[in-house]
Amino acid sequence: MSQKIRVTVWNEFRHEKTHQEVADVYPDGIHGQIAAFLGENPDIETRTATLDEPEHGLTDEVLANTDVLIWWGHMAHREVSDEIVDKVQRRILNGMGLIVLHSGHFSKIFRRMMGTNCSLKWREAGERERIWVVDPGHPIAKGLPESFVVPHCEMYGEFFDIPKPDALVFLSWFQGGEVFRSGVAYHRGKGKVFYFRPGHETFPIFYQPEIKQVITNAVRWAAPVCGAYTDLSTAPMVSAPESFTVSD
Amino acid sequence: MSQKIRVTVWNEFRHEKTHQEVADVYPDGIHGQIAAFLGENPDIETRTATLDEPEHGLTDEVLANTDVLIWWGHMAHREVSDEIVDKVQRRILNGMGLIVLHSGHFSKIFRRMMGTNCSLKWREAGERERIWVVDPGHPIAKGLPESFVVPHCEMYGEFFDIPKPDALVFLSWFQGGEVFRSGVAYHRGKGKVFYFRPGHETFPIFYQPEIKQVITNAVRWAAPVCGAYTDLSTAPMVSAPESFTVSD
Amino acid sequence: MSQKIRVTVWNEFRHEKTHQEVADVYPDGIHGQIAAFLGENPDIETRTATLDEPEHGLTDEVLANTDVLIWWGHMAHREVSDEIVDKVQRRILNGMGLIVLHSGHFSKIFRRMMGTNCSLKWREAGERERIWVVDPGHPIAKGLPESFVVPHCEMYGEFFDIPKPDALVFLSWFQGGEVFRSGVAYHRGKGKVFYFRPGHETFPIFYQPEIKQVITNAVRWAAPVCGAYTDLSTAPMVSAPESFTVSD
Amino acid sequence: MSQKIRVTVWNEFRHEKTHQEVADVYPDGIHGQIAAFLGENPDIETRTATLDEPEHGLTDEVLANTDVLIWWGHMAHREVSDEIVDKVQRRILNGMGLIVLHSGHFSKIFRRMMGTNCSLKWREAGERERIWVVDPGHPIAKGLPESFVVPHCEMYGEFFDIPKPDALVFLSWFQGGEVFRSGVAYHRGKGKVFYFRPGHETFPIFYQPEIKQVITNAVRWAAPVCGAYTDLSTAPMVSAPESFTVSD
Repeated sequence: MSQKIRVTVWNEFRHEKTHQEVADVYPDGIHGQIAAFLGENPDIETRTATLDEPEHGLTDEVLANTDVLIWWGHMAHREVSDEIVDKVQRRILNGMGLIVLHSGHFSKIFRRMMGTNCSLKWREAGERERIWVVDPGHPIAKGLPESFVVPHCEMYGEFFDIPKPDALVFLSWFQGGEVFRSGVAYHRGKGKVFYFRPGHETFPIFYQPEIKQVITNAVRWAAPVCGAYTDLSTAPMVSAPESFTVSD
Repeated sequence: MSQKIRVTVWNEFRHEKTHQEVADVYPDGIHGQIAAFLGENPDIETRTATLDEPEHGLTDEVLANTDVLIWWGHMAHREVSDEIVDKVQRRILNGMGLIVLHSGHFSKIFRRMMGTNCSLKWREAGERERIWVVDPGHPIAKGLPESFVVPHCEMYGEFFDIPKPDALVFLSWFQGGEVFRSGVAYHRGKGKVFYFRPGHETFPIFYQPEIKQVITNAVRWAAPVCGAYTDLSTAPMVSAPESFTVSD
Repeated sequence: MSQKIRVTVWNEFRHEKTHQEVADVYPDGIHGQIAAFLGENPDIETRTATLDEPEHGLTDEVLANTDVLIWWGHMAHREVSDEIVDKVQRRILNGMGLIVLHSGHFSKIFRRMMGTNCSLKWREAGERERIWVVDPGHPIAKGLPESFVVPHCEMYGEFFDIPKPDALVFLSWFQGGEVFRSGVAYHRGKGKVFYFRPGHETFPIFYQPEIKQVITNAVRWAAPVCGAYTDLSTAPMVSAPESFTVSD
Repeated sequence: MSQKIRVTVWNEFRHEKTHQEVADVYPDGIHGQIAAFLGENPDIETRTATLDEPEHGLTDEVLANTDVLIWWGHMAHREVSDEIVDKVQRRILNGMGLIVLHSGHFSKIFRRMMGTNCSLKWREAGERERIWVVDPGHPIAKGLPESFVVPHCEMYGEFFDIPKPDALVFLSWFQGGEVFRSGVAYHRGKGKVFYFRPGHETFPIFYQPEIKQVITNAVRWAAPVCGAYTDLSTAPMVSAPESFTVSD
């Protein structure tokens, strides 16, 4: 691959500034840690963007030069401007990949793309999560064992109100009795969306090798395919490709 | 079935008032004709609602007493209030069925539910459409022949920018060389969505027996299942159904 | 519904004759218990068939008069004749429903319909299973709570080697750390297939109200839709429904 | 990519030997032409295998060293040994890709993988086919226009008796009034299956640039992902990954 995949890692970046225990875990922000491990791959180049930058760091120029957008948010979903959400949605439908992490399930952009509540059950008890691969031939499962453990996590439980995924890659088990569809993949327009459950701000989950592997796999899967249909936002009137006669 | 399925047929109801040729075809409005044939079934009861009524005829009371909402719109999608769209979406995710017809592909509510552009190609040439059943075991295909013809139609062609359907029931062939996914079904939250392509305002399509059969089948398929999870709009914090000990 | 759904409950019926603890739980056989609770519904009529009957009780006449076939087998999958499997497959593809229970995952007919190994992990430790509804609008979830418990079960764990289901209705959690896609639904030809995980022979699972509800729901979902295409086993040469001229 | 994708192109190779008009179009056999254009890619290496070779050219050694198997057959499906079909199925479920072309829809291996009749309607009239991309973000659609034409073809029409595809990439339009799901993709076990409709033996379809593009894309998509679960043919008894206590 001669051209690198251009990833923009977006983070709300609030917890890290207001909660010392989060800053201790992610001194460069969650976005910094994700960009760091992704940037170690020769086929990926990264930049970051955060909520408090102008246009949340997602200018037209940034979006036009982003192949895959990674999204982490939690406490400030409502502060994201609807205009930026409109632009991100349009960019996805014209080919960009979107990877939504953990509490991003309730972000405006994920709810917009899904059309559903994206609600779920949750609990912060530090319990153990075991993640199972249930589509072992999927590119996002590459290099992973049959199951792996996140030692301490915030629990998310079903019912997760999302559309039926085009591919269900991971299922989670929690000590407290819940299960969750933890890795779900969608084609939308010319673009792709992947949601991945793990990633709470108070646990060092984004340092864990299997988690890094999943996100790296997802970036490669979500990179645009330069296919048919350059713009999908309008409904063009077209002349017929085949000749015909209208009957009475 | 002791309780009837309560259907609300919503129509923009503008073409019929401004275009004589439309009024000639649908003297009681498109909604009137749809409500008429549905109402002939002993298990279905109907009411209608239109854009220019207060709250577009979709008050909280009407929505609370609607099992399946049918939607036809074309020239005035933008006049539908976002607040009503919010309410309809919420009602669908809590169990109501939605059946979107023809030019309703560009309605706010359908785009909201899909998360995509819902764009397509189109042409008004009065050409012939042939509709093929491609999921013969689906309840919406009940009683239909292998294929049937709409003698004169407005053409809709791919790419139709929708999520991958949970079920693809019909495919259309057009004289001019296009194809279209004409009957697509989705589960969303506790509710269901069905889009059906035929139905242009200047052709007597809603009088055609096969079309009436499809819409009647779709009403029965989309009627709510009184299942688990009474409200899905929030994410509740929950205690663990199973006891456990957190490890170090 | 004027005509009843005609269900044939097929059971291998060996454990009950050789293991006293199984006979204690199911004195009339697993098939007897399933037929008993299904038969309480006014819209369902049942008969049973077992491995050691001539043609395993599945004669042409029985199959022709079966709307939904329920299948339980475990220790004698290999004794089922390939010729009967051929006939059952053909009947399903022409409209009959098939409901496969528990250890039936390794039956010839289920593997035939799936095209995959249908393998899984298992453990007999009597542990607790918690079953979650993950498609609350699906007819098979009707009347069920958000989750329910099977107090003691044989564990089945992922990876379950099945095709991606057309609908994923239930997910199971097990005390020992595994998860499982416990209720999976498929359209195949004109017919339908549902696999449901619970049902070990040494536990009184088929007496449990939620389990009875699921199987009853599944029978109604799997009943044939009398749709298009009367026979699908051959590939007919056809004349063109539309006239055309071949170009040079 | 340091390691090449190892493709085996399998052809029945009978028409070419018995019908001069086929030999005129494919002097090196259909397999020869497919292997020729695939072999021009630096990341692909090819070999061929044919029905009349020992073990149909598909020895254990060949299968073990095949990443993607391409299958073309028509008049001699029944001569393929069941034992070889067993082996190919097992190899697919453990990771190999399978690409089935045109009349291969009725091959034993495709029917085995699908679990359905794989029947369809057909007509040899030399009519025109127009193929539409309906999943423009799918890797198999890479580099293709919105639609393209096969000038003369054998028609295949719906209903095509296959499982609901995991991805529907192409739809075909035919002059005579039929439509067809022409490019359908499946995950099965650890492997993948893609069926592509065009390819009649009397037309130079495998020389057409768009067709070559699709098959090349499909090879890259179907190449194995070295993921979890090394063998899926057995159901292992496992000890619990998490400790637990069985309740009364």
